[in-house]
Amino acid sequence: MFLKVDDLLNRTEIEALTELARRTQFISGRASNPHNTTKNNAIQDPADPSGKQASQLVLTAIQRNEQARNFVLPRRIAIPTFLRYGEGMTYGAHVDAAFMNLGGQILRSDVSCTVFISDPEGYQGGELTVHLGSESIRGKGGAGSARFYPSTTLHEVASVTAGERLVMITFIESQIPDQMQREMLYTLNEVRALEGLRMEWHNRMSLEYVIANLLRMWAR
Amino acid sequence: MFLKVDDLLNRTEIEALTELARRTQFISGRASNPHNTTKNNAIQDPADPSGKQASQLVLTAIQRNEQARNFVLPRRIAIPTFLRYGEGMTYGAHVDAAFMNLGGQILRSDVSCTVFISDPEGYQGGELTVHLGSESIRGKGGAGSARFYPSTTLHEVASVTAGERLVMITFIESQIPDQMQREMLYTLNEVRALEGLRMEWHNRMSLEYVIANLLRMWAR
Amino acid sequence: MFLKVDDLLNRTEIEALTELARRTQFISGRASNPHNTTKNNAIQDPADPSGKQASQLVLTAIQRNEQARNFVLPRRIAIPTFLRYGEGMTYGAHVDAAFMNLGGQILRSDVSCTVFISDPEGYQGGELTVHLGSESIRGKGGAGSARFYPSTTLHEVASVTAGERLVMITFIESQIPDQMQREMLYTLNEVRALEGLRMEWHNRMSLEYVIANLLRMWAR
Amino acid sequence: MFLKVDDLLNRTEIEALTELARRTQFISGRASNPHNTTKNNAIQDPADPSGKQASQLVLTAIQRNEQARNFVLPRRIAIPTFLRYGEGMTYGAHVDAAFMNLGGQILRSDVSCTVFISDPEGYQGGELTVHLGSESIRGKGGAGSARFYPSTTLHEVASVTAGERLVMITFIESQIPDQMQREMLYTLNEVRALEGLRMEWHNRMSLEYVIANLLRMWAR
Amino acid sequence: MFLKVDDLLNRTEIEALTELARRTQFISGRASNPHNTTKNNAIQDPADPSGKQASQLVLTAIQRNEQARNFVLPRRIAIPTFLRYGEGMTYGAHVDAAFMNLGGQILRSDVSCTVFISDPEGYQGGELTVHLGSESIRGKGGAGSARFYPSTTLHEVASVTAGERLVMITFIESQIPDQMQREMLYTLNEVRALEGLRMEWHNRMSLEYVIANLLRMWAR
Amino acid sequence: MFLKVDDLLNRTEIEALTELARRTQFISGRASNPHNTTKNNAIQDPADPSGKQASQLVLTAIQRNEQARNFVLPRRIAIPTFLRYGEGMTYGAHVDAAFMNLGGQILRSDVSCTVFISDPEGYQGGELTVHLGSESIRGKGGAGSARFYPSTTLHEVASVTAGERLVMITFIESQIPDQMQREMLYTLNEVRALEGLRMEWHNRMSLEYVIANLLRMWAR
Repeated sequence: MFLKVDDLLNRTEIEALTELARRTQFISGRASNPHNTTKNNAIQDPADPSGKQASQLVLTAIQRNEQARNFVLPRRIAIPTFLRYGEGMTYGAHVDAAFMNLGGQILRSDVSCTVFISDPEGYQGGELTVHLGSESIRGKGGAGSARFYPSTTLHEVASVTAGERLVMITFIESQIPDQMQREMLYTLNEVRALEGLRMEWHNRMSLEYVIANLLRMWAR
Repeated sequence: MFLKVDDLLNRTEIEALTELARRTQFISGRASNPHNTTKNNAIQDPADPSGKQASQLVLTAIQRNEQARNFVLPRRIAIPTFLRYGEGMTYGAHVDAAFMNLGGQILRSDVSCTVFISDPEGYQGGELTVHLGSESIRGKGGAGSARFYPSTTLHEVASVTAGERLVMITFIESQIPDQMQREMLYTLNEVRALEGLRMEWHNRMSLEYVIANLLRMWAR
Repeated sequence: MFLKVDDLLNRTEIEALTELARRTQFISGRASNPHNTTKNNAIQDPADPSGKQASQLVLTAIQRNEQARNFVLPRRIAIPTFLRYGEGMTYGAHVDAAFMNLGGQILRSDVSCTVFISDPEGYQGGELTVHLGSESIRGKGGAGSARFYPSTTLHEVASVTAGERLVMITFIESQIPDQMQREMLYTLNEVRALEGLRMEWHNRMSLEYVIANLLRMWAR
Repeated sequence: MFLKVDDLLNRTEIEALTELARRTQFISGRASNPHNTTKNNAIQDPADPSGKQASQLVLTAIQRNEQARNFVLPRRIAIPTFLRYGEGMTYGAHVDAAFMNLGGQILRSDVSCTVFISDPEGYQGGELTVHLGSESIRGKGGAGSARFYPSTTLHEVASVTAGERLVMITFIESQIPDQMQREMLYTLNEVRALEGLRMEWHNRMSLEYVIANLLRMWAR
Repeated sequence: MFLKVDDLLNRTEIEALTELARRTQFISGRASNPHNTTKNNAIQDPADPSGKQASQLVLTAIQRNEQARNFVLPRRIAIPTFLRYGEGMTYGAHVDAAFMNLGGQILRSDVSCTVFISDPEGYQGGELTVHLGSESIRGKGGAGSARFYPSTTLHEVASVTAGERLVMITFIESQIPDQMQREMLYTLNEVRALEGLRMEWHNRMSLEYVIANLLRMWAR
Repeated sequence: MFLKVDDLLNRTEIEALTELARRTQFISGRASNPHNTTKNNAIQDPADPSGKQASQLVLTAIQRNEQARNFVLPRRIAIPTFLRYGEGMTYGAHVDAAFMNLGGQILRSDVSCTVFISDPEGYQGGELTVHLGSESIRGKGGAGSARFYPSTTLHEVASVTAGERLVMITFIESQIPDQMQREMLYTLNEVRALEGLRMEWHNRMSLEYVIANLLRMWAR
């Protein structure tokens, strides 16, 4: 399942991030996957203070977004990182690593997130493409929007043929690692939010009883 | 979880069963569990034609009962059998066998069912007692009523101190063997039945989507 | 995961099916889901002999297709059924029933399949749309092609605004009900098919060892 | 499964808790569940120092009790909290939250615990009622006793019609979240404790082998 | 886990099988695995009536053996087949297929079984070798003995350097597919068989309660 | 599955450990299992500084060994401890405790490890024996070698009849507690390491996709 959040960042934040990106040192994306010859992009130098400020800004924006919280049921969120794709840059089909080091703790990547900073009109190509066998989900988000997709998929960034694509990406560990189970809980929570207040008290309690017990069963 | 159905059988059926029991040959209950020294009751001779007629009558009554179907999600039902407890008879704490032979097929007993034929006023003692650690559920059903309880529990029949206790018992294989999972589905089905028609179409579809997928996940 | 098979049916079969459809009696699709007010299509009368011939033709075509077999790992296939959407017809978002009756046996629907009979140029609208949260997979297949998609999704057929959309649909029980697990096995089988003969014997055996044991673990 | 511990607290502790409750500030129970209109009780102000002393006293009493440890297989125990039900107070049927914040750590509530402080003769009504479908477990414990019951159940406190009901409640995360699995381990541990020393060494080791491996399998 | 049964067959049966093997037509073992270049042995022609008689004899011997039944918890047993390894013959490391066709039904191979017909002194080499990573279990059974081992392992038959190795092999579907779970049940059943009659009635019931419920949980 | 690592320690380390063992205080092995009458060996006093130095040395050697890391997929490693078996000493068949305290944290023992310090020629008897039902893996490792075996097995150390057997033992929590699942991942990782660079890029990504997703599914 996929989630688009159109307004994760407001106009002021987009501008701040654009400015911070300009001041941030970038290094070759190959650094974190030296053997992946299809990876050709630039990533934020983890030590750069402007970059750190930008990471914190995006982390806060994700944490405050209720739609995202309901969808992901987050437990830990990796530090968001700038990725810059100049002309000719690309990232071939890959799967995100299952486990990542998050300041000493281990984070399991269940949901991947791309936050679009640059305007989609500002570059050609560069679509995020998530493969689902014979079909795929393909798109470019508006500036300030976010896409959440399962880390368990093969996905890629098409070659940028003109302009520059600036995004922030991060990886989230959910309370519920199994995608199908997470969708079931998300959907029941939506039903409760939209119908709960109109239900008879007893039936509403029944729904809460199921939701609480599925959470217990499936959290890992 | 437990289910009481007060009117599984109607008055005519209770009388027919009482009469059929009178004509049925009974044998020692020890026959099916020779090593169980705490089992002291009489069971219907499986070859007796009156008994077979009675079994069929109760089987039909269980199959037609909607409450029971929703609660148990039955896949196979063992042939119901008369049990008679005369004065001094009892059946000590035991767990029902996990698998039983049902005419060549194997039946897993997930839910046990006692159908009360004799009137509770007609005997002293003889309460069905289901143990749940320090607590227990203990009771005598009215004539024609049924109790459904998990086959996974230790349960017993208290000693009959006067009169005669006549019941029919059976064992049911559910689509959903795990008790907690079966309760979750039962509860969601109840919410749908009671609230579904008042919900927005989209939300009702969401609930059906969850129910169908939990069934797929858990049926075994 | 999704699978498109472009040439499930050859030209002769498409013509035969078109002709059989003309001779087949159709009834209201509402018959099988009386409460679903968003279902407005026509389905083949199950008793019609021309329809039965058509069903058998499509069943055979699915069974012989190696791509489909590898993708679905089928155990049982429901009898394919004609669906006809005339102008104004549609089928709102729904989830396929988890269990279906297949001639006395129970079939769990894990993978749904639409076989396109009419030419996509012959009708307007009528796209099959599979919802994946904020995103969806939407399309019209060429005559003779098939789409396989998870029965666990909410999906719909958009309103036909002109012409007639004729398809056959069916539901398949897989050896591996969990979608993610099925994808893992499908992918390992592809690696074996494409790389196995180039591998060292020992490594090839290692891969077969994993595939056989995942099958044992996950089949249900 | 349920566990009653009659003497969790000794006479001195009961008196100390009664006195501490008198000195503790209480606030409306609605504070922690603002939307639950059936919750009408008073809870200890978390900041009150007398209350904190009382919480610690009960926590220690639970931790030292061997019966409770064997039954619950505890990993984390929430800070026990006073609940006071004056005349007319009640807490309608509800399910305990699946996850709670315990000083920065997340605690999954698997087993709920009520410790009775006031004498059952001192109030009318106020029975703790745990629902199990058509049946329920209903009761009032003696002063100093505790009841452990699955957090996964719907349960309620009947309206207090006279006097005052003072209890402490807490929630425990078990090593083994699934109730049925926890019962299996508890039962095997009981068999080992009661029969182990009489068994042949080899058979005793076999039993320990099973217990250790079930723990590995099921702990989560 | 492994099981050796020394006396699966008695002297008369060994002689009958030796004689039946002499009258049975053998075909190349490659027939059932055409791509496996490491398989070089001779198997019984499935249509040969003497071979069928031999298969039935061994099937009966396995079915009657209590040790084997307790260890394997069998649900279905494939038709046993003669394998003959003459000088220079061998079967390289392989894993047994997960699923096999057994007269229309599908059989999952959980436990593999080799029944030794020829005397181990009658051939050189030909040891059955089951690989467990860096270690292996390697051996030749006496005439009439059987070895049961997990079908999930890589195993092989070493090259026969002199004489002839005649065995019968078969594959068994267990009620409990997971090897570790099957071992737990086997071990608890052994404890019950060896200690049950010396236990207090209540503790013995507790053990039966656990065994019955683990069977319910794990059978698939 | 088992792993032998022949050269976990180099000659200098073996000598350093031999010398440290000489300076370390040992206590009775019964101390940690007071009720186990079959345990008769000497263990390092946990407070001894020479022993602590030796523990650290072996811990480092395990952590740096790539073969061991790939096989065990370690998350936490218990502090290695000297065990000394003098003449007549032994440790009867036992299973390692499921959970251990590791400096406040809980460690689940999934894989057990014996590091051999003394030369196998220096003692008689003392073979490490891992029971697998009717079969067993039995052996003495060379000085500086290590054996990794499942903590889930019954295993023992045969009586030392002459000389002295000095080993270090430890227990490792794996990312993947289930032994069969851990073997599947280990085997796929081996295939990737040995064949990955020769594969087509797409197929190599497919293999990585499966490995990453099995890790997500199974880590606990």
